[in-house]
Amino acid sequence: MTETLGSTGEFGLIEAVTRSLPRGEDVLVGPGDDAAVLAVPDGRMVITTDLLVEGRHFRQDWSSAYDVGRKAAAQNLADIVAMGARPTALVVGFGGPADLPTAWALELNQGLADEAELLDVSIVGGDTVQSDKIVVSVTAFGSLDGRSPVLRSGARPGDEVAVAGRLGWAEAGYAVLNRGFRSPRTVVDAHRRPQPPYAEGPRAALAGASSMCDVSDGLIADLGHIAVASEVVIDIRSQALAIPEPLQAVAAATGADALTFVLTGGEDHALVATFEPADVPDGWTVIGSVAEGNESLPAGTVTVDGATYTGATGHAHFRS
Amino acid sequence: MTETLGSTGEFGLIEAVTRSLPRGEDVLVGPGDDAAVLAVPDGRMVITTDLLVEGRHFRQDWSSAYDVGRKAAAQNLADIVAMGARPTALVVGFGGPADLPTAWALELNQGLADEAELLDVSIVGGDTVQSDKIVVSVTAFGSLDGRSPVLRSGARPGDEVAVAGRLGWAEAGYAVLNRGFRSPRTVVDAHRRPQPPYAEGPRAALAGASSMCDVSDGLIADLGHIAVASEVVIDIRSQALAIPEPLQAVAAATGADALTFVLTGGEDHALVATFEPADVPDGWTVIGSVAEGNESLPAGTVTVDGATYTGATGHAHFRS
Repeated sequence: MTETLGSTGEFGLIEAVTRSLPRGEDVLVGPGDDAAVLAVPDGRMVITTDLLVEGRHFRQDWSSAYDVGRKAAAQNLADIVAMGARPTALVVGFGGPADLPTAWALELNQGLADEAELLDVSIVGGDTVQSDKIVVSVTAFGSLDGRSPVLRSGARPGDEVAVAGRLGWAEAGYAVLNRGFRSPRTVVDAHRRPQPPYAEGPRAALAGASSMCDVSDGLIADLGHIAVASEVVIDIRSQALAIPEPLQAVAAATGADALTFVLTGGEDHALVATFEPADVPDGWTVIGSVAEGNESLPAGTVTVDGATYTGATGHAHFRS
Repeated sequence: MTETLGSTGEFGLIEAVTRSLPRGEDVLVGPGDDAAVLAVPDGRMVITTDLLVEGRHFRQDWSSAYDVGRKAAAQNLADIVAMGARPTALVVGFGGPADLPTAWALELNQGLADEAELLDVSIVGGDTVQSDKIVVSVTAFGSLDGRSPVLRSGARPGDEVAVAGRLGWAEAGYAVLNRGFRSPRTVVDAHRRPQPPYAEGPRAALAGASSMCDVSDGLIADLGHIAVASEVVIDIRSQALAIPEPLQAVAAATGADALTFVLTGGEDHALVATFEPADVPDGWTVIGSVAEGNESLPAGTVTVDGATYTGATGHAHFRS
């Protein structure tokens, strides 16, 4: 008989999960008490939280439990590095139905743990509850190691806009899966398991990035957040955006526009930042520039090749 | 037309919610960026997380959105004070269906904010997503202000066991609601909106508490966590447990045993701690004692009046 959450029970699951959690030296009190205690030698803690819900953020027939774990950790860790910080720890809330195989929860946990271990991140606590649909909440922590946080509000006219990491791959993977296909495998894998360019967040901060965020809503939407917060206009040069071959293949097969994947696809968790022209670090690609707003292009606007983009700009929750 | 999450949209909801969040001076970067930044002058951060799911932790016909917010904050803040720490901040994840009235989400937020403001706690960030059932995840943070954390593992033979706060009230309220009634109002209110004795956590730490936890699974179950972690035997003296009049009334009306509410009811988030006899602070009631394990009563055992308790010991998630 397959063991399920109902037969394993809350405390059994916690015990099984806790055994395999990555735990670094900064964990003063780990899982098993009312709360964890984490050393914060910098005196400042960077904090972000995300909620993933079955059917909305993942589908069991598209993604394995392991993939969901990797993705849940990755999207939070990407938010930490987008502040220029080094990720240090996670806590996880998990809800699932009583008839869910216990193996599913353990594989999810393994995915979370493996993504965390990529960055020597500790998993310091969590909660498990019963729910009809699977729910995963992750709260991630990071250290600025003495640096200032890189906010969305610091972009200045004259800065260049640069990206690190993939754009549009996860969106192309979603387009493929949504039509019932499983290939090209590279884009499907990108949808299932993002690969944020973690090291580039702290590197950009050290290089003097004036603003930064991760691309989770889509390049235009997320640059819009920077443009609004910084009260500037941002122009993207489409020629500077490489359209990788798999995205071209998906676009050709589905009748979509490959550039749309790149401009509006979220969930690859690339990083986009602004720098003074001399500061752009190796590994970053310049894709645009920052200017002052004016009467015809007010501050907060993002343009593509100088013109307002008229397509969809990214997904928003609650609206379909 | 009633405004719903679908018509307000994710960004509209975030904007409405963010306006009214409590924010203290320790919030270096608040909501609106990839992550928040919180000052942690103590150099250590106490962290706990809980997930609340509609139908499992609350019902819309039993609790208002405001009550759910108060309760979600309270149960996390209780975990922080149970470490002897002072709560400082919260982050919140919220999922709800597109047809949920926006007012529901705003009232939930007001409940979270009001409970947080009781303790000058800041709400520093969050996430909103779409989900079929309402889900609320809260991660809470606290400062030890130079003190050592009070763990579950420090109880010593010879210590006295003492409690602060209510026991059994929320469970009696649940029993009433579960039978379709709405009174006695005091116990129904206790189920909807716990009142943890927040100030008693740091006070117990300062008084030298050797172990502490909050009563969320039930007194016997939670003392069991202390007994196991501390490798001791704990005896509860039932005569020392006051049975308040409303619990007696509910027991009489429902055919239940009022002492069972007190021994096994969770969710009031009372605090239970162990102290050397001379250290028990004002405001705490001695209800038992700590002894070494022996052959007939091995370490990890909790007894009531010297005998093993044979009733149910508290609720466990996943098992029904």
